[in-house]
Amino acid sequence: MLGTIFLSELVGMALLIILGCGVVANVALSGTKGHNGGFLMVNIGWGLAVFVGVLTSAASGGHINPAVTLGLAVDGAMKGEAIDFADMGVRFAAQMIGAIIGAIIVWASYKTHFDDEPEAANKLGVFATGPQTRSFGWNVVTEAVATFVLVLSVISFKNFGAMTAPNPAGGELTSLGNLAPLAVALVVVAIGASLGGPTGYAINPARDLGPRIAHAILPIRGKGASDWAYSWVPVVGPMIGGLVAGLVGAAFLPGITL
Amino acid sequence: MLGTIFLSELVGMALLIILGCGVVANVALSGTKGHNGGFLMVNIGWGLAVFVGVLTSAASGGHINPAVTLGLAVDGAMKGEAIDFADMGVRFAAQMIGAIIGAIIVWASYKTHFDDEPEAANKLGVFATGPQTRSFGWNVVTEAVATFVLVLSVISFKNFGAMTAPNPAGGELTSLGNLAPLAVALVVVAIGASLGGPTGYAINPARDLGPRIAHAILPIRGKGASDWAYSWVPVVGPMIGGLVAGLVGAAFLPGITL
Amino acid sequence: MLGTIFLSELVGMALLIILGCGVVANVALSGTKGHNGGFLMVNIGWGLAVFVGVLTSAASGGHINPAVTLGLAVDGAMKGEAIDFADMGVRFAAQMIGAIIGAIIVWASYKTHFDDEPEAANKLGVFATGPQTRSFGWNVVTEAVATFVLVLSVISFKNFGAMTAPNPAGGELTSLGNLAPLAVALVVVAIGASLGGPTGYAINPARDLGPRIAHAILPIRGKGASDWAYSWVPVVGPMIGGLVAGLVGAAFLPGITL
Amino acid sequence: MLGTIFLSELVGMALLIILGCGVVANVALSGTKGHNGGFLMVNIGWGLAVFVGVLTSAASGGHINPAVTLGLAVDGAMKGEAIDFADMGVRFAAQMIGAIIGAIIVWASYKTHFDDEPEAANKLGVFATGPQTRSFGWNVVTEAVATFVLVLSVISFKNFGAMTAPNPAGGELTSLGNLAPLAVALVVVAIGASLGGPTGYAINPARDLGPRIAHAILPIRGKGASDWAYSWVPVVGPMIGGLVAGLVGAAFLPGITL
Repeated sequence: MLGTIFLSELVGMALLIILGCGVVANVALSGTKGHNGGFLMVNIGWGLAVFVGVLTSAASGGHINPAVTLGLAVDGAMKGEAIDFADMGVRFAAQMIGAIIGAIIVWASYKTHFDDEPEAANKLGVFATGPQTRSFGWNVVTEAVATFVLVLSVISFKNFGAMTAPNPAGGELTSLGNLAPLAVALVVVAIGASLGGPTGYAINPARDLGPRIAHAILPIRGKGASDWAYSWVPVVGPMIGGLVAGLVGAAFLPGITL
Repeated sequence: MLGTIFLSELVGMALLIILGCGVVANVALSGTKGHNGGFLMVNIGWGLAVFVGVLTSAASGGHINPAVTLGLAVDGAMKGEAIDFADMGVRFAAQMIGAIIGAIIVWASYKTHFDDEPEAANKLGVFATGPQTRSFGWNVVTEAVATFVLVLSVISFKNFGAMTAPNPAGGELTSLGNLAPLAVALVVVAIGASLGGPTGYAINPARDLGPRIAHAILPIRGKGASDWAYSWVPVVGPMIGGLVAGLVGAAFLPGITL
Repeated sequence: MLGTIFLSELVGMALLIILGCGVVANVALSGTKGHNGGFLMVNIGWGLAVFVGVLTSAASGGHINPAVTLGLAVDGAMKGEAIDFADMGVRFAAQMIGAIIGAIIVWASYKTHFDDEPEAANKLGVFATGPQTRSFGWNVVTEAVATFVLVLSVISFKNFGAMTAPNPAGGELTSLGNLAPLAVALVVVAIGASLGGPTGYAINPARDLGPRIAHAILPIRGKGASDWAYSWVPVVGPMIGGLVAGLVGAAFLPGITL
Repeated sequence: MLGTIFLSELVGMALLIILGCGVVANVALSGTKGHNGGFLMVNIGWGLAVFVGVLTSAASGGHINPAVTLGLAVDGAMKGEAIDFADMGVRFAAQMIGAIIGAIIVWASYKTHFDDEPEAANKLGVFATGPQTRSFGWNVVTEAVATFVLVLSVISFKNFGAMTAPNPAGGELTSLGNLAPLAVALVVVAIGASLGGPTGYAINPARDLGPRIAHAILPIRGKGASDWAYSWVPVVGPMIGGLVAGLVGAAFLPGITL
């Protein structure tokens, strides 16, 4: 069981990073076919990266995000389920390792463009997020809000599956079925377009920290510093957002009769 | 029942505004990653905001729009159902409160960019719509037409669910099932791209009036006036559109055998 | 029956034109929020216009295009079904009337921008298509190829519904179900992006001729000629494409065991 | 059986190339309505081309890509199925012939724009891919990685269908059903946006070699060389990617209990 979860989260996370950091490489590095493709292209690229990552990690429920893992565990705890710390630990480890592997593959896929890119900041930007305005407090707020929207949506989708009895409020939607991975992907496109402006929406600690570690390790030509001063923001902000979503989701989301 | 509806509409409406007004902030405010991202990005952002809002408010049928609430009630009345005024009142209140809360969260998420933005008009534009040509009569026409398309589509989706008998005209589509929230979202993308050019497609009184109230209340640095002179247009236009859609939908839409 | 078909095709066609010609107005007319939004925005707008039009005309099978009506009739005839000329005539009439009504509503929705637009060619472009290179022979080829792709896809979707027995070639897809309207919409986005470059992809005689008639009739300020010299191309090209798709579809499409 | 497979793959491949190479023609050739439409438009165009191609070739499982055919065969072999070489040969032949036919139709559809285009490189670019940085080794890596992501995703979708027993890891997704063709299309959009930057993502030997042959044969005005020196890269790279995906997919993908 834990082996399946580990492998599933690792594969899904690697694919998330290959496609997600890949679209940033395409837009940010000079000389590519997608250079200066615009922020909407980045949003769509990351959203579809989530789509592929969630589908290929369906065996483990497609978390591929420590904030989602935390939020779902807290949501479950609010509903009386025991928290499975071994499960959480395995997922966190797999997500981090998968993210590092994915980042290495992005670097290999864009090797010649990393070599030719003059700006070190553009190289770091492929791996890790950075804020437009450096204001750690407000940056945490933005990351927490964006992740809250993500995890609340995921909990909402999970609730649909539990609506086996007719909805007391008269709604008809009782399950997202095979549309769930696409729905999560579209939520991520929405969050990127809407709340990605100030910090670049990490909304996932492993998505930011894993590739940042890869950036620090890899022999990237002309790379600069890995900006460790900021590195805690896209970890703490998303974990706060996931935690709050887990706390309030059970109380405020549809499917709960008052 | 009414408590569930109230909470469901409030949460869905807040998410609609966080993501919807969020994408305008990203495109309009200076210094963001999505600055000048284009109108298509705004359309996609608002459409997916509707997607998230409708999904998370599924317990109340996902109205999150007074014009939809009105149109569905009128459609029901045309088909012989009694209008439930308490239900309507609860929804209107929840939609307004949710919109105000959502707008406050957008302001917090983009705090540093509101501070740095020099143009007061761009700040108001994040919250409320405004016309390209100030011509109240034609502005009402545009808002009414755009909302008519939205509500007629929603009534059409509702009709599918009632097509339990084989369609007399030979069509095969009898229910949208779990595709309905996505379908509504795509209708909103279409309306934005197609009919959003003159007035910015409020097509939802609470979406415009709620954030406008938030704009008037919030201590936004360097904010200008809230343009109350125009504020009635995105309320009256959409309500007219919803009303007409409700009136003619029952008579003219597919599913009705002549 | 014929009354339902007439009303259904008329409503669906009007919505197709409101949203389809609407997106062109938004991109082409000066002073709109979507001005110069790009060809991809036009493609997405038209594709989603088809989505809304097909959904709201589901009672009549969602043709809203004489070339589709022709192609499906020919496909049926190839498979031994009798052609129902009354049905075809009713559809053609409804499609033309709906297109004219839709075009009038677009004009009203963009009234102030039509008034302010200096270029007559941009005003005609909202209503009717025109070629980039005026070469009637090749223009007919492009329109015929693009419509062939559309109608062949529609016939292919229809075939899925008939695959009640297990697919002899081992495929698993036996019905598009509620995804069919979205599938047609995505086909139209694809055709616009891919084959819309030379002529603006009318791919629908009523979509071009109906609004062209509206352009000739309406009191549009500063309008120029309606370019009747070209008007036969987006009628004849699509009808050829639909006819050929109907002829070869039955013979070459999957679902047919050789 | 083999006749159905041949015809199905040929029709699907021709449609893939008509729409896929068509969007490049629209963006790359001068004087079209989509000129300079951007890389995202190319990504969306190719993704939807795959959607149409897979749907219309559903009778043969919608491979329309030798690397997919190879990867699925290897995946099957890893799970103990015998490789059907006749089936593979028929598919490869149909894919190549369909690609050549599709390329000819693109040329006819854009005839006047090929005639007017001054740059020979833009004409070749409609048919075949070329790298931004000419470094055959790294170009093979990029093509192999991108195709690996594609084929691994396809194998993953195939695995869902085999999850008839409840998922041991607790996931709920057991089949993509009618969403599979859209899912493959979205994977291709993602790959294009994310990994298409260095080489233009052939990710399909027939997609590149077939149109390149058409370019060499067709009497295109002012065409240059067909760049045969590079032609092996978009054949070998994708076949390596498909092979590796087939080898590791069975061992590492969800649905497999450890």
